[in-house]
Amino acid sequence: MNQYGVNFRLAIWGESHGAQVGISMDGVPAGLSLSEADFEVDLARRRSGARGTTPRRETDRPMIVSGLYNGHTTGAPLTVVFANENTRSGDYANLERHFRPSHADWVAFRKFGGYNDPRGGGHFSARLTVALVAAGVVAKKMLPEGVRFATRLTEIGGCDDPARFDELLREAAAERDSLGGVVECRVAGVPVGIGEPFFDSVESRVAHLLFSIPAVKGVEFGSGFAGSRLRGSQNNDPILDGEGHTATNHAGGINGGITNGNEVVVRAALKPTPSISRPQETYNLTTDRVEPLEIRGRHDVCVALRGAVVVEAAVAIALADLWRSR
Amino acid sequence: MNQYGVNFRLAIWGESHGAQVGISMDGVPAGLSLSEADFEVDLARRRSGARGTTPRRETDRPMIVSGLYNGHTTGAPLTVVFANENTRSGDYANLERHFRPSHADWVAFRKFGGYNDPRGGGHFSARLTVALVAAGVVAKKMLPEGVRFATRLTEIGGCDDPARFDELLREAAAERDSLGGVVECRVAGVPVGIGEPFFDSVESRVAHLLFSIPAVKGVEFGSGFAGSRLRGSQNNDPILDGEGHTATNHAGGINGGITNGNEVVVRAALKPTPSISRPQETYNLTTDRVEPLEIRGRHDVCVALRGAVVVEAAVAIALADLWRSR
Amino acid sequence: MNQYGVNFRLAIWGESHGAQVGISMDGVPAGLSLSEADFEVDLARRRSGARGTTPRRETDRPMIVSGLYNGHTTGAPLTVVFANENTRSGDYANLERHFRPSHADWVAFRKFGGYNDPRGGGHFSARLTVALVAAGVVAKKMLPEGVRFATRLTEIGGCDDPARFDELLREAAAERDSLGGVVECRVAGVPVGIGEPFFDSVESRVAHLLFSIPAVKGVEFGSGFAGSRLRGSQNNDPILDGEGHTATNHAGGINGGITNGNEVVVRAALKPTPSISRPQETYNLTTDRVEPLEIRGRHDVCVALRGAVVVEAAVAIALADLWRSR
Amino acid sequence: MNQYGVNFRLAIWGESHGAQVGISMDGVPAGLSLSEADFEVDLARRRSGARGTTPRRETDRPMIVSGLYNGHTTGAPLTVVFANENTRSGDYANLERHFRPSHADWVAFRKFGGYNDPRGGGHFSARLTVALVAAGVVAKKMLPEGVRFATRLTEIGGCDDPARFDELLREAAAERDSLGGVVECRVAGVPVGIGEPFFDSVESRVAHLLFSIPAVKGVEFGSGFAGSRLRGSQNNDPILDGEGHTATNHAGGINGGITNGNEVVVRAALKPTPSISRPQETYNLTTDRVEPLEIRGRHDVCVALRGAVVVEAAVAIALADLWRSR
Repeated sequence: MNQYGVNFRLAIWGESHGAQVGISMDGVPAGLSLSEADFEVDLARRRSGARGTTPRRETDRPMIVSGLYNGHTTGAPLTVVFANENTRSGDYANLERHFRPSHADWVAFRKFGGYNDPRGGGHFSARLTVALVAAGVVAKKMLPEGVRFATRLTEIGGCDDPARFDELLREAAAERDSLGGVVECRVAGVPVGIGEPFFDSVESRVAHLLFSIPAVKGVEFGSGFAGSRLRGSQNNDPILDGEGHTATNHAGGINGGITNGNEVVVRAALKPTPSISRPQETYNLTTDRVEPLEIRGRHDVCVALRGAVVVEAAVAIALADLWRSR
Repeated sequence: MNQYGVNFRLAIWGESHGAQVGISMDGVPAGLSLSEADFEVDLARRRSGARGTTPRRETDRPMIVSGLYNGHTTGAPLTVVFANENTRSGDYANLERHFRPSHADWVAFRKFGGYNDPRGGGHFSARLTVALVAAGVVAKKMLPEGVRFATRLTEIGGCDDPARFDELLREAAAERDSLGGVVECRVAGVPVGIGEPFFDSVESRVAHLLFSIPAVKGVEFGSGFAGSRLRGSQNNDPILDGEGHTATNHAGGINGGITNGNEVVVRAALKPTPSISRPQETYNLTTDRVEPLEIRGRHDVCVALRGAVVVEAAVAIALADLWRSR
Repeated sequence: MNQYGVNFRLAIWGESHGAQVGISMDGVPAGLSLSEADFEVDLARRRSGARGTTPRRETDRPMIVSGLYNGHTTGAPLTVVFANENTRSGDYANLERHFRPSHADWVAFRKFGGYNDPRGGGHFSARLTVALVAAGVVAKKMLPEGVRFATRLTEIGGCDDPARFDELLREAAAERDSLGGVVECRVAGVPVGIGEPFFDSVESRVAHLLFSIPAVKGVEFGSGFAGSRLRGSQNNDPILDGEGHTATNHAGGINGGITNGNEVVVRAALKPTPSISRPQETYNLTTDRVEPLEIRGRHDVCVALRGAVVVEAAVAIALADLWRSR
Repeated sequence: MNQYGVNFRLAIWGESHGAQVGISMDGVPAGLSLSEADFEVDLARRRSGARGTTPRRETDRPMIVSGLYNGHTTGAPLTVVFANENTRSGDYANLERHFRPSHADWVAFRKFGGYNDPRGGGHFSARLTVALVAAGVVAKKMLPEGVRFATRLTEIGGCDDPARFDELLREAAAERDSLGGVVECRVAGVPVGIGEPFFDSVESRVAHLLFSIPAVKGVEFGSGFAGSRLRGSQNNDPILDGEGHTATNHAGGINGGITNGNEVVVRAALKPTPSISRPQETYNLTTDRVEPLEIRGRHDVCVALRGAVVVEAAVAIALADLWRSR
């Protein structure tokens, strides 16, 4: 549900237009140096402002309301909340019963018997990922020294040439449309032996968290889908030495669900933002008819832009939990 | 670790060349009609024998050792075990310290300090998936009437024309090499509202289980990676009626992590079998050198062949657990 | 750790003198009518003010910061926070390294390497039980209609005559000492069949939560310890009819870990408040000597007074989780 | 349900008269020396034979079917099974619808819609505790060197003079009745700092497991119920030195849910065996009347006799899990 983890456990809450979004982290070791400023770099990576991102501005100021004392974590639950400020719920008045295509609106309405908070997608909003990013910052502090993340957007709208990304975003925006993308996260310096047999493979735990991110519809490790098109003789990674270094890294740093000391490589496919401003024909419960829907509100042309740091956070959280469980 | 689930929980155990492989299922409702014969159809789908599968023959006779009384489940843990019979551990004598590329041998050796059972991959062997298939059979009985699975191998070695599969397998075998593949599982009749917000999305729970399967390195739902290359106007699924039917199904039957009543569609990428009989250069701990390794033993040319039913089982297990948790 | 539950899950956080104490509840069904006023009756039962309770006054105003919309729960996490107001951390300045006997101060210092928040007991303070009471209110709303709780203090300082309680409290206060007590919770109207075999017996789940309450050192069901002194012919409860009514209720409404439809009866032993204002000889880390410690601050003469509603909350939470899991 | 634990996880299964009783343990570290003979001492303590125990004889030969290789644990699930041999199901033919008082028969019948296995109490039988004892043996090997258990029966039928136990048992047997008892488990050498704040206190986790044992109806730590009758000045344990030694041990070695380095002391109250051979008036579903029931079969006069080692196993399992989670 909204709580996850074994030895590093998260509880997340909040709605897009509610009072706040928050996360409580259990299992954070005592003695980590931490301040609210430590969150800023990653929050900035998620913050809107660049081309292709929503004009909704949130200050995203993290407030640490428990688990910190004299600038260090205490070993008790570390709780971070973000007040919601820049909400314009009026934008959503027409959507309560006229369901946006490919959003959670309709399933939420049905699953919760109409009691769900529909404003801005309510609990299903990508707004909650701000809390995941905060947890990612803490997770990275929990990992052993030398672990380094490198995360980038490798594709937008099927194009893998970053030089053209800006142009594609401009075009899509002009056409009141949206774009998807692929985020790749590479993690160097991961110790050998993280991950557990069978149900708690690194892949299982990382993918579990990645698929919690709204918009993620595909996840692959190492050579992934492309690797399934290779032969064994091509896809195998010969071991070079007693430290487990391999000549190639089609495995993405994971064998048998366990890290092998090489770079962990994971990619997530994010669908194009379903909220587009061009009219869409979709079912209206009030009239019981398919009718054109115009989505107001302020939306990202490409959620993958701000999603990169969220993907990184999910990977870091999964690794930190497994690291603590080793 | 080796136990997973919330309201339908599995505990799996065993080694490739140990006494048995087994699974204990908790949360199976009382009163399901069940006999050992009920497992046969799915076990046969996993059994070797066809071209491209290992010549190791296992009778795979399931023994139900708890939780069944007078032909019905009792509500107590349902435990199914499979004795290992056709083991040839001698084939593995040379592998204990000469690590097969892209296998779990080296990480297992390191993680467990050399105490792991290396015979046939030990606990990391795909042999354990026989237990997952058994759990899948029970999971399907737990799902509501009308849920129907259709699972097939859509690609082998990058080719999506089934007419050519046999030819490709023959070629790869002749060249002492192996092939990967892609398995697609479609589930019709899934009720609306299965899955939970945030961490227990259907995608998260299905992917968690799929990535437990040795060889799975990629998972996608609906349009998946291809969908990330579409525009929102192309990838969105307009809702047609009050039952949530959509004109297209790029979402793979899941919005906001919750089933929307349309067909659930998931694909898994399986890497080529890492055990190939052609010699491979890889690290030998005894000599502390890279040396040619020849893998004896009996192996599948393409694990995806027998993997289709395993993928289906994983999907069924995830859905059954979420269905019971609704 | 600080998160617990299967289908009704709690995450608790906060410190005695931190910014807030809070709880996030996952698995609350959508559509429960709820307002902040609904918490008042139980919060008042926990609030100080009566003889024997601390002079520290907290307004204990619950703020619902997520999971509520238009006066009903939404199915998303329901989060309730309580700001800390009336803190006097100065009272604790002398305690940071001069450890109070029978408090968590010393173990917290050791376990968390001195990084724990020591003010008012920090995360170990009974202050956190305000959040448990809030969850208990929600739990009671989740239980089926007809479930009724009756909870009372059956003993103070070993005396089971309520007429004398006030006198005992006055005496103990005058002697700068404290008293323990026994709380009994009786739950009528519990449906047959709640609880699960083996590890999730009603007793296991209720006791797990009860022993989370600071001060609880004993738990018994039905005839409990006294029953262990009876013979089978005396302690057995003959069944009277097809509804499972029994002539006696030594089992406390639970057989084989499962409710049998009779009244659930549980008792918790709460130790005397360890904070007493008379000087105590105990170890001082600064001087590395045993020295007299005088505890300032404001304390309950008998925590069992305010603990009754906390015990009731714990019982309700356990039953609500098991009820949702049935 | 039938699976429990965080980093040392158990899955238990089986029925009194089914094929086997078994347990799979996950999280056992690799490299523990183990053989089937290692279980014998504790199994012998649970075995019947002494006065007051059932004449049903089980050889209780443990079979390790996974997780062991060359005499050491491998880090993979360690699974131990016990075949059922000496079953006389005919003894139970009259009980299927004529429910024994204070047994799980009636609730099991109702909860599982009549599909439960009623032979010998089925899954609710104390037979399953043989598996718990096996897990206890492994748990003790997982604990750090120097941890020592001392467990004894402190009361039978309310009498705390061991010299009279034999006489009491003889009397009760002669009168076709049964006796309860109290088991005390003391654990020396437990390191400081085991246990987690709030929901995973040592008391919570130990009590959770203890209340899984059929017959346990009360649990207390340290001075427990008696402590609730003391004053703070009497019950407090002054700290004597920097290692946390205390002058008294009313806390039973646990403050704030965390071990303080003193002896852990826990007591469990076991009810008198509900199966007594003297006739009892109780409900018969077949006739829909209260009628005298005569219980045949072979039963313990006092389950607490064989229960001592089971209590010890539960304590060891809880400590081992928390130790691994620290």
